[in-house]
Amino acid sequence: MTIARHHTNPRMSQLVIHNGTAYLAGQVGEGATVAEQTRACIAKVESLLAEAGSSPERMLQAIIWLADMADFAEMNSIWDAWVPAGQAPVRACGEARLAHPDLKVELIITAACD
Amino acid sequence: MTIARHHTNPRMSQLVIHNGTAYLAGQVGEGATVAEQTRACIAKVESLLAEAGSSPERMLQAIIWLADMADFAEMNSIWDAWVPAGQAPVRACGEARLAHPDLKVELIITAACD
Amino acid sequence: MTIARHHTNPRMSQLVIHNGTAYLAGQVGEGATVAEQTRACIAKVESLLAEAGSSPERMLQAIIWLADMADFAEMNSIWDAWVPAGQAPVRACGEARLAHPDLKVELIITAACD
Repeated sequence: MTIARHHTNPRMSQLVIHNGTAYLAGQVGEGATVAEQTRACIAKVESLLAEAGSSPERMLQAIIWLADMADFAEMNSIWDAWVPAGQAPVRACGEARLAHPDLKVELIITAACD
Repeated sequence: MTIARHHTNPRMSQLVIHNGTAYLAGQVGEGATVAEQTRACIAKVESLLAEAGSSPERMLQAIIWLADMADFAEMNSIWDAWVPAGQAPVRACGEARLAHPDLKVELIITAACD
Repeated sequence: MTIARHHTNPRMSQLVIHNGTAYLAGQVGEGATVAEQTRACIAKVESLLAEAGSSPERMLQAIIWLADMADFAEMNSIWDAWVPAGQAPVRACGEARLAHPDLKVELIITAACD
């Protein structure tokens, strides 16, 4: 079965599609607060889902890494407001330091695109 | 292809089914020890797998987060006894602080349901 | 649909195949440096992908755990050189202590095998 790759560089693709499933690279974003960074991540996720022929309503799984679990409630305030009503993916959220010290949140999304 | 969602609230679903694959939300459980919490997680996983028309024999992938890697052996003692003989999923186990300080273990399971 | 499992013990399988997707267990390797360990992980990944009838060109998703994010650049130097040009999977890399204190990196790979 074919594999489609988008925004591919020597390290990673931002989007890979196979067998009706869209895998997104971990998305991070700029911002001074975790709320701002979460909004920036979500904007990137929405763009990639649209490229995949998917949408937030068709997300399957979300893995969320927070650099500091103290940001849990603030991240959730943005996340909960964004997720389409009745269409939430499964989710797990754990604390992990990220690739750069200024990064507070990373979203790893898998979605349906068939 | 259709997506089925179970136990959906504004933040997440506990189970999402698409294309013969069942994605379970990260499961946590109550208990004073990691053994107790692992048993509680497993009980929730078994219930969700049954809802999906799957079973422990049909697990594909397990990602396990431990809040303290010192609990590795104790968690494994429960895990190893539970996994159906000859039917173990792939697995990865890493240390990550979880959403609440009293949580010691989280299981993120993907299974076949076709 | 059938599930194929390879290198299965009471704790985990090293490879599980279902519906055209190959799930690999988190791979770790020996070595005094993260570069050496990354090379050892990659050798194991290549062997498992070959068993699955897949290849590095058909990787879908890579989750990378580093015990110390200070090793990010050194790990990337090996990773970037290994990934087939134009065929990179999606990727996320976070910091997580691993099962043994001498482990510096773990690779969790999903690939297409249809």
